[in-house]
Amino acid sequence: MTPDETFMRMAIDVAKIGQSQTSPNPLVGAVVVRDGIVVGQGAHLRAGGPHAEVHALSMAGEAAQGSTIYVTLEPCNHYGRTPPCTQAILQAGVKRVVVASADHDPRTKNLGIAHLREAGLDVTVGVLEQEAKRLNRSFFHRVDTGLPWVLYKSAMTLSGHTAADSGHSQYVTGEKARQQVQALRRCHPAIAVGIDTALADDPRLTIRDETGSAHGMLQPVRIVFDSQLRLPVHAKMLQEPGKTVVFTTERARETAVQKVAQLASQGDVEIVATDERDGHVNLRQAFSHVAVRGWNSVLLEGGPTLAAACFAEQLVDEVAMYIAPALLVSGKPALAGPGTKHMREAITLNSVEVEQVGDDWRFTGLVDYTSATNES
Amino acid sequence: MTPDETFMRMAIDVAKIGQSQTSPNPLVGAVVVRDGIVVGQGAHLRAGGPHAEVHALSMAGEAAQGSTIYVTLEPCNHYGRTPPCTQAILQAGVKRVVVASADHDPRTKNLGIAHLREAGLDVTVGVLEQEAKRLNRSFFHRVDTGLPWVLYKSAMTLSGHTAADSGHSQYVTGEKARQQVQALRRCHPAIAVGIDTALADDPRLTIRDETGSAHGMLQPVRIVFDSQLRLPVHAKMLQEPGKTVVFTTERARETAVQKVAQLASQGDVEIVATDERDGHVNLRQAFSHVAVRGWNSVLLEGGPTLAAACFAEQLVDEVAMYIAPALLVSGKPALAGPGTKHMREAITLNSVEVEQVGDDWRFTGLVDYTSATNES
Repeated sequence: MTPDETFMRMAIDVAKIGQSQTSPNPLVGAVVVRDGIVVGQGAHLRAGGPHAEVHALSMAGEAAQGSTIYVTLEPCNHYGRTPPCTQAILQAGVKRVVVASADHDPRTKNLGIAHLREAGLDVTVGVLEQEAKRLNRSFFHRVDTGLPWVLYKSAMTLSGHTAADSGHSQYVTGEKARQQVQALRRCHPAIAVGIDTALADDPRLTIRDETGSAHGMLQPVRIVFDSQLRLPVHAKMLQEPGKTVVFTTERARETAVQKVAQLASQGDVEIVATDERDGHVNLRQAFSHVAVRGWNSVLLEGGPTLAAACFAEQLVDEVAMYIAPALLVSGKPALAGPGTKHMREAITLNSVEVEQVGDDWRFTGLVDYTSATNES
Repeated sequence: MTPDETFMRMAIDVAKIGQSQTSPNPLVGAVVVRDGIVVGQGAHLRAGGPHAEVHALSMAGEAAQGSTIYVTLEPCNHYGRTPPCTQAILQAGVKRVVVASADHDPRTKNLGIAHLREAGLDVTVGVLEQEAKRLNRSFFHRVDTGLPWVLYKSAMTLSGHTAADSGHSQYVTGEKARQQVQALRRCHPAIAVGIDTALADDPRLTIRDETGSAHGMLQPVRIVFDSQLRLPVHAKMLQEPGKTVVFTTERARETAVQKVAQLASQGDVEIVATDERDGHVNLRQAFSHVAVRGWNSVLLEGGPTLAAACFAEQLVDEVAMYIAPALLVSGKPALAGPGTKHMREAITLNSVEVEQVGDDWRFTGLVDYTSATNES
């Protein structure tokens, strides 16, 4: 590791402190170094709060004069909710700026770097770039595509069943895997389920503390896809702290006027209507809305019909499948979409990693739709 | 490793030479050592052929006088197809006998050891015993239970599908996994499929050489479970070298007289009838027949109905599931039995091992029926 890489690694590590808190903003970390000594460091913690550079320079104070600042993301050059970071860097008398990755935000992309160079600073770009891009994969994806990064998570037996035929699914996996899923929820600003899952399991979809309470915790937004507005007014998730967004069709919103009013009266509930697609919510439209709202990523927790539709629409980016070393002689599948005809329709996963979690095994991978051919 | 363990390891390794050839007999290896030098070694290669001890002592010749013989399984003490090995050992002037595992065969169990001790030889039992028992797991299982060791093998996507909805399944896994399945077939004296698989895939179920030919190779017995004798007379497997056994019900054998005659005319085909169980072949009876025939193990290759029925009857001992890092939005399950109600009905696997095979992953485990409770 070069000295630049060593300090950038510190900046990446400190950026992670903001994990799951910064949406719609990216995670950013900054380290200020003068004569080989770290004199300041900072992380972006909440949208609307100071950027990482501002925290780090403020900690450095006078020592920032003639220093090098390491930033995981290109400093912003525009007035947003806070003044531009390029201005703070220039005012502090920084001599050199090391950037891991240029921004993707069209308002800033390369402008911050150009501005600093024009002002005479020495700017290096691309140190630990891949890691920095990985850190903000969701943010970049949303900015690049107008869609959130979607992680599909499920758990199945080695016979490929996510539940018994009755729908009973508590539990497929062991304690450790379930704890890991709670941790996954904390990394995503939104969790999505289909109405069938909402009706069958009546899940709370909350993050809970050691005592089991969901209060005083940052809760992900709960998303329910509910084409016919069947979500019961007394669904548990509506009684929990945090926001619930129910995606439905325009037709359902117009016809089920009373249900809309009842649901809307249950605290922080929003009903969002999309065009109809084969009688269902237009999923691409719904996910676009999620992106516009600034929710960088969505943890998709099923069920099989919704998940299959999301894959068919190429909306899922990543998969985490927990596999329990057990067999059911019969049960429900993970994905249940329209009839497939040929193995060539299979969607491939890349960058597959397999890890043991307690007695279970977790497969993760990135979805590659280019490999699948539609034979139907 | 002690010297005893070192020489026993050699005996175990040499025993493996007979892999898949010795059924109904066990694999046995023997090493003769005199003054710390290996003077003879042998393996049992075919039922009816000389036992390992006889080969090893014959190679040692005069040097066997005053030697130690290492044998992976207790020497036999009875006249079977060959004279007792205890007699050969005594005649050769062996001084010490080291045995990995006592036999399970009621005709020999502990009798060989007792006979050698009575004759004044120094006998040590239990060196690398677990490994030796593992080596002959199928043989011991058949002798102990009257049933063959059954390995259920299947391949599925990470969405839990073994085929597209159309039944198309070529191929779920990649080249390396498929090569490994050919190797698995070579380790089992019998391969079993259900009639649905036989009708859908018309498989040959043979071991083939580099040129794709099945001739001149030791073929496993092909077993088809076919309650209503629907197997076509021109099924590919009936044209291949080797034996096919069709298990059917007594009723089908009595009514479909013409079909029985047609099938029986296709070379080496046997029709074996069992009692009826819910209109199907009585699987336990069929597998008992397999054991009586001396086929120590069966590779069960599906399909979902047969496999589920075998698990429901607690006939499967081991599982090898290949998982491809790919998803089908819909497809066929690995197991499709009667409706399950509760996750507690799940059958647990023990001694689970996970290994990457090319781009795919292989899960293996031993089936533990004691963990499953029937909630139906």
